[in-house]
Formats: sequence, structure tokens, C-alpha cells
Amino acid sequence: MLAVTILGNNSAVPAHSRHPTSQVVQTRTEKFLIDCGEGTQMQMSALKIRSLKINHIFISHLHGDHYFGLIGLLTTMGLNGRKNELNIYSPTLLKDIIELQFKAADAHLPYHLHFHELKNEEELFQDKNITIRCFRVNHRIECWGFFFREKRNKRHIDPRKVSAYNIPSAAFEKLQNGENYISREDEEIKNELLTTEGEHAASYAYCADTGYFEPIAEKIKDVDLVYHESTYLKDLAEKASSRFHSTSIEAAMIAKKANAKKLLLGHFSSMYESIEEFEKEASEIFENTECAREGVCYLV
Amino acid sequence: MLAVTILGNNSAVPAHSRHPTSQVVQTRTEKFLIDCGEGTQMQMSALKIRSLKINHIFISHLHGDHYFGLIGLLTTMGLNGRKNELNIYSPTLLKDIIELQFKAADAHLPYHLHFHELKNEEELFQDKNITIRCFRVNHRIECWGFFFREKRNKRHIDPRKVSAYNIPSAAFEKLQNGENYISREDEEIKNELLTTEGEHAASYAYCADTGYFEPIAEKIKDVDLVYHESTYLKDLAEKASSRFHSTSIEAAMIAKKANAKKLLLGHFSSMYESIEEFEKEASEIFENTECAREGVCYLV
Repeated sequence: MLAVTILGNNSAVPAHSRHPTSQVVQTRTEKFLIDCGEGTQMQMSALKIRSLKINHIFISHLHGDHYFGLIGLLTTMGLNGRKNELNIYSPTLLKDIIELQFKAADAHLPYHLHFHELKNEEELFQDKNITIRCFRVNHRIECWGFFFREKRNKRHIDPRKVSAYNIPSAAFEKLQNGENYISREDEEIKNELLTTEGEHAASYAYCADTGYFEPIAEKIKDVDLVYHESTYLKDLAEKASSRFHSTSIEAAMIAKKANAKKLLLGHFSSMYESIEEFEKEASEIFENTECAREGVCYLV
Repeated sequence: MLAVTILGNNSAVPAHSRHPTSQVVQTRTEKFLIDCGEGTQMQMSALKIRSLKINHIFISHLHGDHYFGLIGLLTTMGLNGRKNELNIYSPTLLKDIIELQFKAADAHLPYHLHFHELKNEEELFQDKNITIRCFRVNHRIECWGFFFREKRNKRHIDPRKVSAYNIPSAAFEKLQNGENYISREDEEIKNELLTTEGEHAASYAYCADTGYFEPIAEKIKDVDLVYHESTYLKDLAEKASSRFHSTSIEAAMIAKKANAKKLLLGHFSSMYESIEEFEKEASEIFENTECAREGVCYLV
């Protein structure tokens, strides 16, 4: 299972009590931060998300509403006595920006910052539970999406069946990984007779900021939950396109083409005091649509 | 009259619903921002302080809790269509930091940013109402205090007296400026016979961040209101000194030596959930002491 908590769903500036972009994705064992607009550390504190548990931060691009809160968060982590290495995945100039600010303060972090430059569509991280890849989206400056995919979950041993077939427990690990059982006498027993399906391996795709860009749909094919930016309502399609942003409808079209299970909309323009219309418009194209609401934890 | 609004009174990190340092000083005609910790633009928005009216920003030093909110505020001013030049007074590296971030975003402000490097204790600004000077304080890195002093207010013409002495109205401006009246017949009438005292010319001094540093008292002599940092209570005097911060008592001693009328304490360490003890301790040395509370506008 993945849990996605929205810290900020607004674009460009904080407005209408909405914050600039930031999200936390959690697995059983890790917390990942995606983007870090101004005020992210205050939102984390309000939502009781402990920053010391975050070891990997993904910054989609270097527009300020996606990273102006990072330097403050890094500083606070240091003042809170963080020791663990912190990994930051981002376009290249971020390292220079952060290092210049620490230089100006004559400040030295008590932990190591490891910058990973985003250059190719590739796997950025994996552990026993999850793999994280980046993919290109289409914005005015270099910008990346992130795809979180749980590894295939182990199959469940059926205790009655393994007992009935008299399978030794030494073989259980292979059975959990989907292999058939082969006895000493070279007799083969199909895995499906001895195990049941493991939990669904969840997937989550983060797509912001981007204009309507069909290749995204291929990259995130069959994803369970896709967050896609939707800065404007459908009547401002031209404005959206000229600024490399998407409308509600365009976000829904990507979700549909990707055969996603569910769509979260976000990155709303400050011109909208209410965001309910976004949901209505998008759900005409892709029914299972919700606006990403700050403070809400979406389970996948 | 000067009005000082506290946007943030905490040190280092946001905590206990307190924000990092920022204040707005207003005269009849201008708004000045002093320091700009993360979240300053949100605090301004919550307190209905319009950023477009601010033309001068003073940054005391380049520790993050005093300027990490600046880049977001500058960006938002641009998105809100600001056209007026904005003046920033700060230690030198700030210009590089801000320019690098705009370069990374491929962003161009619709207004001119004019950086003024703080180098000497000197006058930074004056208009018809006020002069603003900077002075050195004693912190781990280069750090400046700011002294706001209203110009001497004009004397009030006493209508009965000028009528009794038959003074022509052409002479009123000179009288308001304190000059004696000299008639065509070279007869001199003392100013005090014709005018009464103008309103008190208010003064405000901002002293943060600094260890206990007696020269400050001379620089701000007879000030009406002094804001002095007081990161720790008196039992942590050694810690304060080693970190170039002050205690409640030390802040009070500076106010007393300066013959200030009133002391505001601020920049409280996050280790203190409640700040009331600061007031108690300091007022034993300097009675007219208050903790700077966020959202409160102090009139001088």
C-alpha cells in the first residue's frame, strides 16, 4: 500500500489558505517528499509528519512554488540534529542554490546532502518494497514526473494446501515468489494450487507541472492513482497551453489514456477561490476524479 | 508616529505557532519590511498588509530565519504585477542568491530590484518623514541593526498669537521650522511666542541578532522603542554568549543603558513553548518591557 498526503495543492503563490506544491508518499518503511514549496515544513508540522524520517526528496523543477521551502526544511532538519544522509533528486542548479545559501550563513549541516541530478528517464531508487522512476513532462523549463511502483507482493501460502500436499517449509520462500514446487522425485506442483494472490502492488504517478503531453500516458500506463496538474478550468485551454500548464479536461484525458484507476487534480491557479468545478469538469471525461485536498491522505 | 507590526518573533525555526523573524515599520507614507523569514508572505496576507506598498526591505543578516521568505515574496510581488522598483538593503551575497534562483527558474521580474550592500554605519534612506540608518551588531556572521527616526515635526502656529503680533502668513513656513520672525523693520519676535511644540518625532531601533554588545546602546541613545533579540532566558547566559545571542537580562541592560522608553523582546528560542517568563525577567532590569507578539501593531 502507498499513502499520499497532500501538503500543498496551489500553484505559483499561497492563496485562499492553499499552499504551494508539496506531497509526502509513504510505504511501509519509507517516506518520500515530492516538491517543497514555501511553508512545507509548517504544513508537515501541522500534519505531524516527522521530517527526520524522510531520506529522499524529489524536486520536479526549479520554479519557486516547487522548492522555495526546501532550504528552510534542510536547515530545520539540521537544527533538529539529523544525522542520516539525505538524498535530493532534482535538476542540476538546485545544488548550487542550496550550497550558496549555506555558504552565506556560514552554516554546516550535521548530515550529508547527496544531490542526484535528473538527466535521463531512469530508476532513481529501489528498496525491497518499491521502485521510483522519473519521466519527462512538458513544462517551460526542464521538469520531471515521478512514478512510484510497489514491487510485486509475495503470494500467500495456503496452509491447508501445503499440508495436504506435504510441502516442506524450506520450499515456502520460492512458493511466495511464484515458483512451482518440484519434489525430490521431480514431481511438479503448480504454484496456484498451493498459494493465493498477494496484495495488489500499488502504483502512483506524480505529473506536474506540464502542458497536455500524451507520452505521459504511456509512461504511467495502468497506474492506480495519478496526480496530474490542472492549473486552469477548461475555458482557459489556450492560456494553459501557452504557459505549459493543463486544464481539468486535459488532466482527465491523460488519466483516461493511461487507463489509470483514479485521478487527483492539483496545482490550482490562485484565480480560483473554490476548486469544486475542477472535479466536475474532469469527471465528465474520467469519472473517478478528485481534487487533491490539503491535509488529506490518499491510500493506494 | 511609527507603527511596528510583528510578523514573526521566533528564532531559527517555526515552532509553537510562532514564525521566524519579520516586521513591518510604517510611517504616514511608507511601509518598510525588516527581515523576511519563511512564511512572511503568508503572515502579511493573514494580517492584510499589502506587499505592493513596500518599496524598501532591510535584511539584517544571511541566516535563513531572517531571509528564506524573501525569494517567495519577490516572486509573488512579480506575479501580482508590481511595477515599482524595490530596494533591498543587505549583506552582499544576497544578490547572488536571489539572482541564481531567478536564473534557475528562467524567471524575469516585471519590476527592478535594486540591491544596496550594507558596508558602513550610515544613512540608508530618507524622505520628508523619516531617516533610516544601519549600525553594526555583534553576531556570528555580519549582522546589522536598523534605526528609524522621524524627522523633527513642524511646530504648530498659534493662531491667536500670530494674529496679535500681526504676522503675515508668508512667514508661517519659517515659523513652523522653528525660525524667529523678523519684521520689515528688523524687529525680531521669538519663535516660542508664536508657535507651540510639534508632535514628538518618534524613533525605533531594531537590534537582532546579537550577543550583548554595549556599543549598541550609544547608537540608539534615547530611542522611544527598541526591539532587542532575547533568544534565551537568563539561566542560559553562557549558551547565549557562545552563540552570539542575548538573554532577557542583556536585552534589558541595553535598553536601560540606551535610556530607551520601551523595550520589545523577540527572537525566542524554540525551546520555550511559553514566552511569558522573558517579560518577567527583563522587567526586573527595565520595567517597560513587553514580548513582541505576532500580529500586534506597536505604536511609537
